[in-house]
Amino acid sequence: MPSFTVYKGSKGGIVKSTTTKPDDLHGDQVIVRITASGLCGTDLHYQHADMVLGHEGVGVVEAIGPDVKVIKKGDRVGWGYQTDSCGLCIQCLRGHETYCSGRTLYGYGNTDQGSFASHGVWREAFLHKIPDNLSDEAAAPLQCGGATVFAALQGITAAETVGIMGVGGLGHLAIQFAAKLGCRVVVLSGSNSKRDDATKLGAHKFIALKNDEKLDEGWALDRLLVTTSAQPEWEKILPMMSPTSTIYPLSVSSGNLEIPYMPLIAQGINIQGSLVAARAVHREMLTFASLHHIEPVIQTFPLNEEGITQSLERLSKGDVKYRGVLIPPKA
Amino acid sequence: MPSFTVYKGSKGGIVKSTTTKPDDLHGDQVIVRITASGLCGTDLHYQHADMVLGHEGVGVVEAIGPDVKVIKKGDRVGWGYQTDSCGLCIQCLRGHETYCSGRTLYGYGNTDQGSFASHGVWREAFLHKIPDNLSDEAAAPLQCGGATVFAALQGITAAETVGIMGVGGLGHLAIQFAAKLGCRVVVLSGSNSKRDDATKLGAHKFIALKNDEKLDEGWALDRLLVTTSAQPEWEKILPMMSPTSTIYPLSVSSGNLEIPYMPLIAQGINIQGSLVAARAVHREMLTFASLHHIEPVIQTFPLNEEGITQSLERLSKGDVKYRGVLIPPKA
Repeated sequence: MPSFTVYKGSKGGIVKSTTTKPDDLHGDQVIVRITASGLCGTDLHYQHADMVLGHEGVGVVEAIGPDVKVIKKGDRVGWGYQTDSCGLCIQCLRGHETYCSGRTLYGYGNTDQGSFASHGVWREAFLHKIPDNLSDEAAAPLQCGGATVFAALQGITAAETVGIMGVGGLGHLAIQFAAKLGCRVVVLSGSNSKRDDATKLGAHKFIALKNDEKLDEGWALDRLLVTTSAQPEWEKILPMMSPTSTIYPLSVSSGNLEIPYMPLIAQGINIQGSLVAARAVHREMLTFASLHHIEPVIQTFPLNEEGITQSLERLSKGDVKYRGVLIPPKA
Repeated sequence: MPSFTVYKGSKGGIVKSTTTKPDDLHGDQVIVRITASGLCGTDLHYQHADMVLGHEGVGVVEAIGPDVKVIKKGDRVGWGYQTDSCGLCIQCLRGHETYCSGRTLYGYGNTDQGSFASHGVWREAFLHKIPDNLSDEAAAPLQCGGATVFAALQGITAAETVGIMGVGGLGHLAIQFAAKLGCRVVVLSGSNSKRDDATKLGAHKFIALKNDEKLDEGWALDRLLVTTSAQPEWEKILPMMSPTSTIYPLSVSSGNLEIPYMPLIAQGINIQGSLVAARAVHREMLTFASLHHIEPVIQTFPLNEEGITQSLERLSKGDVKYRGVLIPPKA
């Protein structure tokens, strides 16, 4: 097996290609045969770049390198937005390896691999065992989407009222996590179209922003996860925030964050940047999802040129409920 | 004594006026004869408003109401930006009374009193005893400026590198507090003009931003207190911030906060709104300032129409090193 299939972005669309498989694995390298890949908004950003796409991978271990310690052939494993770090800097030593200056993130480094592929070679250190009761296709969107929202819920107590803005790939997972963490969950959405879904996922209140719906007394938001790609109308949102509350802008976006200045000061509001999850948090997320049966609502597409192209088109139109998952077609 | 002298803002300038003194004090009211008042940037915002100015007061207790428990006649006390709260809401119960929805803040409520006055009637609950080794004029700027920067240094460890942007009323106190808290202190200023002063106050490094000076390797800022009234050039500042660092915008300003979006996410940076200090923090600040002999560098002006007018003019031109203090002229 000298190479494996990968799917890359290009100016003309998705192209099938190959990546060379090493003859001998070294260090803690692991070869994973991919069985499911989530589809994330970040993939849209890179769809015209010359790189292998996909960063919500799940698969089965086919071979292990000489220094692999825990993972065994046949194990089901997953990986996400980050696949390496230096392990030596102060951020790594603190367990904040997502902020290591030598980090390998999706789109930066190792661009000849991704989860839109038949296989991948990854470091054991950045692979996570998948709990038995999570299927491959359910586990895939947790590797980035699930990890991202769970990280923004760190340190929470059940006394908090959590706002989730946007019911999409991230939002529909955030609702479930926040509800199972025991919090009061308020969903902020444009229209009423997702009200029933949000309620089924665990929301206690639903605010249709276009209708200028107001929060009930006593339901001010202690934490808000902004999962929409468009920036919120802060003038509507800030009056819903409680004093000393925290806003997590979770979508990747260019340009400036523009937010009214005085309400931040006068209410002691905090805007917290947050990038996916460190591995310790990622593992806690998988354990929590397993215990509470938190699973994404998915639409599957075949993991080939046509399926990837179609799924990206649907995603760009906001026409995926709620997370696309690519599955290798049966041979 | 049916009334006392106060100095108010007006469209035409500072005017002398009177406020009626209650015949009988009720509850935990305390009459304070004012001996020193700090001058704060916020006073400039209100100088044309029909209200008594000043919110960094120090004085001597002249009389106490029937429910006063600790404060005695003759005590030296101070007060700041907040002079009342409901005491019953969740914010008050948490010790976050600065965010009480029923709070009385400078400029909001009780506008017929202030520290630009001969006397004031305040609740014991919002007065703070002044440590013996702090003079009245040294203690006055601590009641708002000192409290504000000390609040933004809460929870700090000596391992942190703290940036102080701006060497003025707030900044020159922040440098001292951060240095005595054991932190590495980096001062960011426009030009080199305050380099020597900053160093004497405790700064370990000084960056003149107009000269595009860079931070040395390993000195990335874990926390930045922005004490300038002008908004920073974020493109210069953000590369100096360490991952998971926190920025405190401390000046009162209108309009929007505009800050590049991606660096916040990619580096997990936090923007923390912060408004003065809750009383517990205010007391810790006074104890800490007393122990470490932290005192403002002040210029004094007479506490009368002419002195207030002159001090406000100087402050508006940035021509006060580093905090103005008004002192009642000798009779």
